[in-house]
Amino acid sequence: MNRFDPVARVIDLDLPIPSLSDNRSHEARLRTALENILGQRPLIPLNTCKVLPYILPSSGYRVQTLLLYGRSEWKVVQVSAESRPLHPYGLAVDLGSTTVAFYLMDLCSGEIVSTLSKTNPQGVHGEDILERIIFAGQGNGLNRLQSEVVDLFNSSVQEIVTGQGMSAEDICFIALAGNTTMCHLLLGLDPAHICREPYIPVVNRFDLIRPGEIGVNVHPQAWLYCFPNVGSYFGGDLLAGIMASDMHRKDEISMLVDVGTNAEVVLGNRDWLVACAGAAGPALEGGILSCGMSAQPGAIDRVDIDPDTLAVIFHTKNGKAPKGLCGSGIIDLLAAMFVAGLVDSTGRLVVDRDNARMQQLNGEWIYVVADPHETGHEKPVYISQSDIKNLIRSKGAMYTILNVLIQSVGIDFKDIETFYVAGAFGNYIDPRKAVIIGMLPDIPIERFKSLENAAGTGAMQALRNRKTGKEVEEICDRITYLEMNVRGDFMNQLTASLFLPHTDLSRFPSVYEMMKG
Amino acid sequence: MNRFDPVARVIDLDLPIPSLSDNRSHEARLRTALENILGQRPLIPLNTCKVLPYILPSSGYRVQTLLLYGRSEWKVVQVSAESRPLHPYGLAVDLGSTTVAFYLMDLCSGEIVSTLSKTNPQGVHGEDILERIIFAGQGNGLNRLQSEVVDLFNSSVQEIVTGQGMSAEDICFIALAGNTTMCHLLLGLDPAHICREPYIPVVNRFDLIRPGEIGVNVHPQAWLYCFPNVGSYFGGDLLAGIMASDMHRKDEISMLVDVGTNAEVVLGNRDWLVACAGAAGPALEGGILSCGMSAQPGAIDRVDIDPDTLAVIFHTKNGKAPKGLCGSGIIDLLAAMFVAGLVDSTGRLVVDRDNARMQQLNGEWIYVVADPHETGHEKPVYISQSDIKNLIRSKGAMYTILNVLIQSVGIDFKDIETFYVAGAFGNYIDPRKAVIIGMLPDIPIERFKSLENAAGTGAMQALRNRKTGKEVEEICDRITYLEMNVRGDFMNQLTASLFLPHTDLSRFPSVYEMMKG
Repeated sequence: MNRFDPVARVIDLDLPIPSLSDNRSHEARLRTALENILGQRPLIPLNTCKVLPYILPSSGYRVQTLLLYGRSEWKVVQVSAESRPLHPYGLAVDLGSTTVAFYLMDLCSGEIVSTLSKTNPQGVHGEDILERIIFAGQGNGLNRLQSEVVDLFNSSVQEIVTGQGMSAEDICFIALAGNTTMCHLLLGLDPAHICREPYIPVVNRFDLIRPGEIGVNVHPQAWLYCFPNVGSYFGGDLLAGIMASDMHRKDEISMLVDVGTNAEVVLGNRDWLVACAGAAGPALEGGILSCGMSAQPGAIDRVDIDPDTLAVIFHTKNGKAPKGLCGSGIIDLLAAMFVAGLVDSTGRLVVDRDNARMQQLNGEWIYVVADPHETGHEKPVYISQSDIKNLIRSKGAMYTILNVLIQSVGIDFKDIETFYVAGAFGNYIDPRKAVIIGMLPDIPIERFKSLENAAGTGAMQALRNRKTGKEVEEICDRITYLEMNVRGDFMNQLTASLFLPHTDLSRFPSVYEMMKG
Repeated sequence: MNRFDPVARVIDLDLPIPSLSDNRSHEARLRTALENILGQRPLIPLNTCKVLPYILPSSGYRVQTLLLYGRSEWKVVQVSAESRPLHPYGLAVDLGSTTVAFYLMDLCSGEIVSTLSKTNPQGVHGEDILERIIFAGQGNGLNRLQSEVVDLFNSSVQEIVTGQGMSAEDICFIALAGNTTMCHLLLGLDPAHICREPYIPVVNRFDLIRPGEIGVNVHPQAWLYCFPNVGSYFGGDLLAGIMASDMHRKDEISMLVDVGTNAEVVLGNRDWLVACAGAAGPALEGGILSCGMSAQPGAIDRVDIDPDTLAVIFHTKNGKAPKGLCGSGIIDLLAAMFVAGLVDSTGRLVVDRDNARMQQLNGEWIYVVADPHETGHEKPVYISQSDIKNLIRSKGAMYTILNVLIQSVGIDFKDIETFYVAGAFGNYIDPRKAVIIGMLPDIPIERFKSLENAAGTGAMQALRNRKTGKEVEEICDRITYLEMNVRGDFMNQLTASLFLPHTDLSRFPSVYEMMKG
């Protein structure tokens, strides 16, 4: 990983005292001393210059200076007498559409000293991104969405700094990763063209921004770094994920998938990187299923079925009475039902295999996971025949996206040494179950690696190492982005994958062996 | 001189229209097109990004862009549909302690389209710099001095742009040259240490400033460039003068003198530059003389005396009745009196040479230049014995400063090919008269060149060529500044020069020849 070379530095100076033979200005005295240490000439903003005649002579020319790294140069943002030591902090932000996570970093040590997770207040205008883009286009919508998230930043900063006995001005750098639309909304950039002709973002690469420009109140000279995006559906969150995985520096080939309604995928190593994004549909996240829910307390997140007794064992979030199924539970359930023969390879419920749990509801077969007497709301938790069809379409789309990308570079899944699974619910997937249903490729299970908190980790990395921005730009420059929608073979491949695990069983040898045995 | 390569550029773009195979963001589309033209990657501020989705598609991707050159990079500050063409202007400012001159430059052509000259409103707190520094240190003095000159900037900008049918936002670059104290006061930098321990300015080199930071209202993305200073008494006005003279690029050796209460001098060529500044005293500017005045209407600015008839011929500013003597008139007068034998080489009035004009006033001999019946105020205009002593001290100091500098590099005055005379009244000096009294060296008269409006010309140069800032920094880096106060030989030399023209007549061969003849 990158060495600790953070975006802020505190440098102690013992400056030569002015004399007739050294009558440089305060500014020149400071600048030259710092230039000798930094190896480059720092900028000194007017506000910093203004305080020099009050601080330098009275401190005996022994001062602490706080420097921030910008595009390619250092800027002296604060000067203090030694008796008032400076201690800069950074804020890493994972700007998710559902949750916004804040990480306060001590920029002297690189340690995270406080974290805070908040619900994205824009959610009231629509859970999904498309709804928010539409809202942004109506009347004052964009301003409203922007101020909601800016207000969240300010209130969260206040909550964090109060807890630490600090002030907001101690935060002098913000590094932020989010998807393309979330970043646009924060910065007040009209996202309309992301989902409308010409189907492009306003900005791919954000220059450094003063947080004050968008109303975020931290140090007045602070910088805000926003991870760039490669396209409308390949955002800064995924680039932060690449940084977190380090796959762009390794010899071995890795694949990184952000699992969600959209599947965003990167494949490659230190020599090459290809990427694509495609719609997998909302079924995997539980969104449109009869009993789907997000990973809240009471969500069934683990399920297993005894293939002999057909007994169902499940686990819920926080151990609460079950209310529904979240993403990882859904994948577990489908895999277990397939292994137990409760669903066949075409996705049809085998209704006479368990007469107790197979029931009819509104003229459709369902499989009951939890009875009304077990649940928290006196209704059953179940999966319906059409839920399963939806699920298979989503898992098939996911697999097809991965496969098209693999084929585009002429390699095979077995060439992938590490397969990173990221995303809001990606972390919780049991990869073996995802392989059984044919959503993820059948590679040795130890090659799957859950990439927890990928965007947040990448954002922290941008604070810990000042060269991160440049490194991310280099990734953007060398990444080849495949437009999934324009590939003719996508639909054919998708059709072939609408089976459990796949029409071509040779692609899933371990599943074939298991089912045979 | 420098080629026209101004700080602002308007570039017309015909951008590729987005498609599925070219789905770069608006920002990337714009940035890449400009990068190809500029040969470097421009910055695109958030405010510029914001308007792109509204302007680019509706204009058919044919736009005009306005770019400003900053430290070392271009910044896209405006984008407009072709139907609303952009036309940037720059403002060059000569920030004098008495007069502030504004020059509006069309940055497309480099032409000056409007000029405006205003009295520096800080003058009410003291004509001279020291008084203003003291005022700045009292209570809210610094803020008051700053806002007076900022207000002058804003009102002058309004006056200029109204006259041109423009708006203040059409001004996107300000280049400013002034002495060290004037620049400090404009920027709100405490000048106290300029005249008090440790006798240094706050800033030698000013980074680019946003005019809005100090309350000057022009284009919101505009830059303000302030010429650096080499020291408390060697300001940006003189560096602008060097730029105006081009002496730092020539093979021949030149000397540049800013004549005033302080004499600021630069000597050198493309290979080396030495400089110094020293107090010549206020007498030369007329300040402390009995009948001294500034170059207002009614000031005697030219005088001659017939050596045979002793008739006095004079010229006044605007042809008004004489009220007093300004700088150039004083030098003319002393030279003419010396040539006519009315004052001897020690500076004593030869009282019996003209019994009519030599009179006694308050127990002191005076020489009457204009009778009460000739003058505008019914009092005589005259020069007194003690005026002459003061004058000789000032001219002697001036010559000594020049001579010490010449000697420090081991050359002789005759090695100077061009002698630039600059400064508020420097332009008006008749160099032959200044040679006769021994204020300027006795070199061929055609080598003297008046450098009119040196600071303003340098400031314009900074608008006309974007590399000027870098060139000025290089001058600062290679200039050797001699501290006059610490040189032991200064006082000895000064004593030798308290004669007309000098104790060592061999230094003034042409004056010797003339007097002998």
